[in-house]
Amino acid sequence: MTDRDPSTLRIDGERLWSRLMEMAKHGATEKGGVCRLTGSDEDKAGRDLFVGWCEAAGCTITVDRIGNIFAKRPGRDDSAGAVLAGSHLDSQPTGGRFDGVYGVLAALEVVETLNDHGIETEAPVEIAAWTNEEGARFAPAMLGSGVFARVFELAPTLAIEDKEGKTLGGELTRIGYAGEAAPGDRKIKAAFEVHIEQGPILEREEKTIGVVQGVQGMRWYDLVIEGQEAHAGPTPMEGRRDPFQGLMNILPDIYAIANERAPWGRATCGDIAALPGSRNTVPGRLVTAVDLRHPDQDTLVQMDKAFQASVERHCAELGLTGRVECIWDSPAVKFAPACIEAVRAGVAATGHTAMDIVSGAGHDSVYLSRIAPVGMIFVPCEGGLSHNEAENATPEDVAAGCDVLLHAVLAQAGA
Amino acid sequence: MTDRDPSTLRIDGERLWSRLMEMAKHGATEKGGVCRLTGSDEDKAGRDLFVGWCEAAGCTITVDRIGNIFAKRPGRDDSAGAVLAGSHLDSQPTGGRFDGVYGVLAALEVVETLNDHGIETEAPVEIAAWTNEEGARFAPAMLGSGVFARVFELAPTLAIEDKEGKTLGGELTRIGYAGEAAPGDRKIKAAFEVHIEQGPILEREEKTIGVVQGVQGMRWYDLVIEGQEAHAGPTPMEGRRDPFQGLMNILPDIYAIANERAPWGRATCGDIAALPGSRNTVPGRLVTAVDLRHPDQDTLVQMDKAFQASVERHCAELGLTGRVECIWDSPAVKFAPACIEAVRAGVAATGHTAMDIVSGAGHDSVYLSRIAPVGMIFVPCEGGLSHNEAENATPEDVAAGCDVLLHAVLAQAGA
Repeated sequence: MTDRDPSTLRIDGERLWSRLMEMAKHGATEKGGVCRLTGSDEDKAGRDLFVGWCEAAGCTITVDRIGNIFAKRPGRDDSAGAVLAGSHLDSQPTGGRFDGVYGVLAALEVVETLNDHGIETEAPVEIAAWTNEEGARFAPAMLGSGVFARVFELAPTLAIEDKEGKTLGGELTRIGYAGEAAPGDRKIKAAFEVHIEQGPILEREEKTIGVVQGVQGMRWYDLVIEGQEAHAGPTPMEGRRDPFQGLMNILPDIYAIANERAPWGRATCGDIAALPGSRNTVPGRLVTAVDLRHPDQDTLVQMDKAFQASVERHCAELGLTGRVECIWDSPAVKFAPACIEAVRAGVAATGHTAMDIVSGAGHDSVYLSRIAPVGMIFVPCEGGLSHNEAENATPEDVAAGCDVLLHAVLAQAGA
Repeated sequence: MTDRDPSTLRIDGERLWSRLMEMAKHGATEKGGVCRLTGSDEDKAGRDLFVGWCEAAGCTITVDRIGNIFAKRPGRDDSAGAVLAGSHLDSQPTGGRFDGVYGVLAALEVVETLNDHGIETEAPVEIAAWTNEEGARFAPAMLGSGVFARVFELAPTLAIEDKEGKTLGGELTRIGYAGEAAPGDRKIKAAFEVHIEQGPILEREEKTIGVVQGVQGMRWYDLVIEGQEAHAGPTPMEGRRDPFQGLMNILPDIYAIANERAPWGRATCGDIAALPGSRNTVPGRLVTAVDLRHPDQDTLVQMDKAFQASVERHCAELGLTGRVECIWDSPAVKFAPACIEAVRAGVAATGHTAMDIVSGAGHDSVYLSRIAPVGMIFVPCEGGLSHNEAENATPEDVAAGCDVLLHAVLAQAGA
């Protein structure tokens, strides 16, 4: 490195891209997406592939009890902790090839690039793959980073069940990723996560890099509406207590709560179940998953109150019992100024176009920011689409984000 | 019988009631209801119990390929066919202790009563237990009577899968009720079915017996609404194509279609699924089970058209793809005058209060009426509740309906 300007250092975009495509084979769907749910056989295959690559790159592997994987490249001085980069390998049921896995393999590419150029760092560099970020199979989301950051306790988290009653702990053991290390038992100097934006803003503004300032606050709810089961044929319409009629009245309010707080308010119903769920029976109960978000915490609290009031009012009018169960509450987050500056330094070193941005999605960085200085880097994704099998990004943008990550990591780790 | 007035003949209400309670143990739920789904272990236990009782009563058992059970008590003359009485043993997932099973055990009680009094009939008397009337596990409903009446073909019906991909044929074989007789290969002179009303009319009008004139027409649909999967956080509200927003606009129309045709129109959404069904993903697809009913066939066709038009209009407005798949179409039915008269004769013999009524629910009698003269008898159920674990009827009403069935059967079978 003595004979060149360190800012000219670049990752190998082709290697990174080919590994992304290789990883996408595990859980590949017919429509070109990925289904790699936490604790599944596909998850195991993806983890094995990743661990193999890390070992070949000379890293030391540690797996903790919640299944988080750490791959360490030593530095000259361990005392101040590692500079960590990573994300998650699990996906949505009909997810894409970039969400999460890009941040993990970009971190590996940073290590490979340091190896290629024989660069020694002051602080160790660690790659992290966090367990169950999506929350798709085991709710809530971000369980691995959450346990690591002591937001969740280990034992009850391992006992969380999927829809079939299988536990997260049982499935991690089954696939061989219930490790022995105590979660959280690693010193972190700074942490970075590169990720596709999962929204349309960078593409619309024609910027390659988003310098992420923080993350929206978000709350997950089960909206439970109970009425009375009755036979679809003989039961007159007027006497019914039908939860669907409650939902029909509450849904417009849910969307209005977000729309009235445009452009940042968000409301999503992602899942629903009717019980007993028989065609010719008025359901006795309807459970709808509701997700409300806003980057301003006070506004999110207002949205919560408006939602609760709507449920109460409409259910009372219709003789239904309604309740709003908040199963996850993630307050708005602001990232560490030192890490944001390191990302800006990476942008300056690489010369890519960039803008400040706020994340609309939750990330492992949210919990990690409670115990360490954290920064995030966004790159554009096609049409802003994510949590979709058609999720896409260009090899150029993927390489650009990884180059910025490399220089942000170097800024904190010290060459 | 020579020394007494035949109209004084009565069934043993205590025996009938105790058998109903005995049968309700198979699939008993915590809330006092029954879950005895077709082809389940509970279905097998219930069938075994019933067959044992029939054999003890001297009946000859035949099981056909779709699992229908026939228990025959011989008559003096087989040539004109049997007088058949029966219903079904399967239940809703959270069903009650009377729906279906009452009609089967009442038919058995008629045979026991004939045995007790040494009454020989001209025509044989047969008890029938039809497979999968509810359609709860294997859709559509009334598959056993439907195959018997040649409404459905045997092979594709046996291949129908439940939500887990298990077939009706496989499950019948597993529980030992895939018989050898060809469905439909039995001569029927007349058929009767006694059933709880599953609605509030008899109770409200304070009548013990409903002389059923026919059955509402009904159609079952899958309403499929497709939009675009997207991440709940970063995706702005305005660009979304969210199937829930389609449903929100269509649901009021669905209920209006029934309410505008009060008091006989019915609209029910009994089940719903979101795909991929993840909390933080706008669903790409929403499938809702819709059930429309009316006793007048022309009106039902109007309702169908209004439903289709609503889906088309709202989905077009919202950039969604909507389609209405009719998976079952059961036209309105009028029962045979001779059988209605036999039920009236039963009412006259027993002296119970009675009124004419139209069934709002489908029954095995609907399909059976296509190949034989059929009549039905209703008794009140508490609060009109059915397809509900709280479904209830009084021992007195249950006995009254069975007495009317006895005399209706005798009127057709000839003592």
